[in-house]
Amino acid sequence: MNRDRLILGIDLGGTKSAATLQTSGGELRYRVATSTPAQDGSDAVVATLISLARNALQAANDLGTVSGCGISVGAPADAANGVVYPAPNLPGWSPIGTPLARIVADALNLPTCLENDADATALAEWRFGAGRGAETMAFLTQGTGIGSGLVLNGRLHRGAFGAGGEIGHICVDTSDEARVCSCGLCGCLEAYASGPSVVRIAAENGYRGEQSGAAVAEAARGGDAAALAAFALAADKLGRGLAVLVMLLNPERIVLGTLAIHAGDLLLTGTESSLRRHAWKRLTEDLTVVPAQLGDRAQDLAALCAYLSRADESNGTMSQ
Amino acid sequence: MNRDRLILGIDLGGTKSAATLQTSGGELRYRVATSTPAQDGSDAVVATLISLARNALQAANDLGTVSGCGISVGAPADAANGVVYPAPNLPGWSPIGTPLARIVADALNLPTCLENDADATALAEWRFGAGRGAETMAFLTQGTGIGSGLVLNGRLHRGAFGAGGEIGHICVDTSDEARVCSCGLCGCLEAYASGPSVVRIAAENGYRGEQSGAAVAEAARGGDAAALAAFALAADKLGRGLAVLVMLLNPERIVLGTLAIHAGDLLLTGTESSLRRHAWKRLTEDLTVVPAQLGDRAQDLAALCAYLSRADESNGTMSQ
Repeated sequence: MNRDRLILGIDLGGTKSAATLQTSGGELRYRVATSTPAQDGSDAVVATLISLARNALQAANDLGTVSGCGISVGAPADAANGVVYPAPNLPGWSPIGTPLARIVADALNLPTCLENDADATALAEWRFGAGRGAETMAFLTQGTGIGSGLVLNGRLHRGAFGAGGEIGHICVDTSDEARVCSCGLCGCLEAYASGPSVVRIAAENGYRGEQSGAAVAEAARGGDAAALAAFALAADKLGRGLAVLVMLLNPERIVLGTLAIHAGDLLLTGTESSLRRHAWKRLTEDLTVVPAQLGDRAQDLAALCAYLSRADESNGTMSQ
Repeated sequence: MNRDRLILGIDLGGTKSAATLQTSGGELRYRVATSTPAQDGSDAVVATLISLARNALQAANDLGTVSGCGISVGAPADAANGVVYPAPNLPGWSPIGTPLARIVADALNLPTCLENDADATALAEWRFGAGRGAETMAFLTQGTGIGSGLVLNGRLHRGAFGAGGEIGHICVDTSDEARVCSCGLCGCLEAYASGPSVVRIAAENGYRGEQSGAAVAEAARGGDAAALAAFALAADKLGRGLAVLVMLLNPERIVLGTLAIHAGDLLLTGTESSLRRHAWKRLTEDLTVVPAQLGDRAQDLAALCAYLSRADESNGTMSQ
């Protein structure tokens, strides 16, 4: 019997977590998911992840040989050291960092690598989705917060202290009327263009419908002036943020996830127009701005890529 | 007799050009310089460069073996293809680009590489100066314009279309009162913090001394209120610009050249304070912001590094 080489993927989210078995080509062979016991703290969450992973490894007995494990975490992470830091949706984790990659590697006896989910999803879109073929690509998530993953010259840029990519917190309004961001800074892109910010601004404008980005988008498409104004503001600011990215890094492609997918042209048209107003033509004329392509498969492929990209990097560090 | 391996360096500036022979360790063995006939157009400039280079190669007969040529150009450049584009201080060059690396390689029969001078100086500070030991470093020139060179994960980031690093043209004032930049955009960092901008703003404030950045710095140190206010504004905006860089790229070191060297603490103290106000502590606490160290040797070493860095990159393209 032909036994596949498989990668174990672990996706740790604030609401749900999953373990998967996938081929290196991204074919899904097994998936198990459960809710994340986020409110019970890190020990409970880690136990849940290991239990999911053991289910997957048991299933792997009939499916193939597992060569490694990739973890995608919805929290700040120091990928080089496999360490996770506290996030609002994962309360009670140690502020000095939890060495999750090593814990999982020891429990499962598998080489294990870990990435922040924005970085891991950037890698997934680059390898399997809307970023294919680009040497230099920026990926933006635009959900509860705005994060990004940067693939520069064919490699994920992780930053010196395991951070960076915080495009959600660059300033797009320097005036005294700038909105205060949840991070404490003023005028952050996230305060205008994240899902909750668009909902909040629509409500301030008089929108009275369901409090979700998708519902505000629906209302805007139906002609609701408050919803339309919120998206116009988000698009203007998002274009300004992307202009900064473009002037500094000159990517050939920008991939927009989450809200941009729900909102489509409602956000993209205004964003592109604002971007082109605020950056040089020489840097925008051959640039493409496209929605993410992986949809429901993004999280699974992100966990896979957390492993694959590190395995590809000759000088990568892996907990094993 | 022990013959050294030498690199021919060509520095093309808007005012002066030079050819040098240096060891790969940066030891200068020969230097010849002349004024750049910039007003006579590209053919005259290219002829001058080749004549300088031939002088150097003749001197090399007694000094060692020349293994390659690096060119640092004070103009936009597509380094991968060795092509130079028009710049304000080099008028009359072809808008479709001049293949300077190939022209020089053919004339001298040497493998030749070319970089924009901000990128080349970034490499020089990284290899020999204030950037030594940093995996991720940003270098800013702050002369007539503001440019930058980014060394990310130990490699120069050149951008998809041979551009990027345009930190001088990211927006640091989004208000209606923002200054208009010479590039046509509004609120660019360069419109506040370049040498000429500081001089212009000081004059608007009532400064009546010599029209140079060094003179305004001198006046500010003597207590001139107009000069002090111009530097305070430049520092505030520069800190905002660096904050964007830090949030996006999380460098471990920022090296400031040109004006920052003349102005010293007059600029650096306010810049650091503004930077720390506009970026997260997690990304600034281990970051160092330092003045460039190479001084008069920066241009020669930049030309050397234009060759060395490309020779180091396994997938580099070299005209030969």
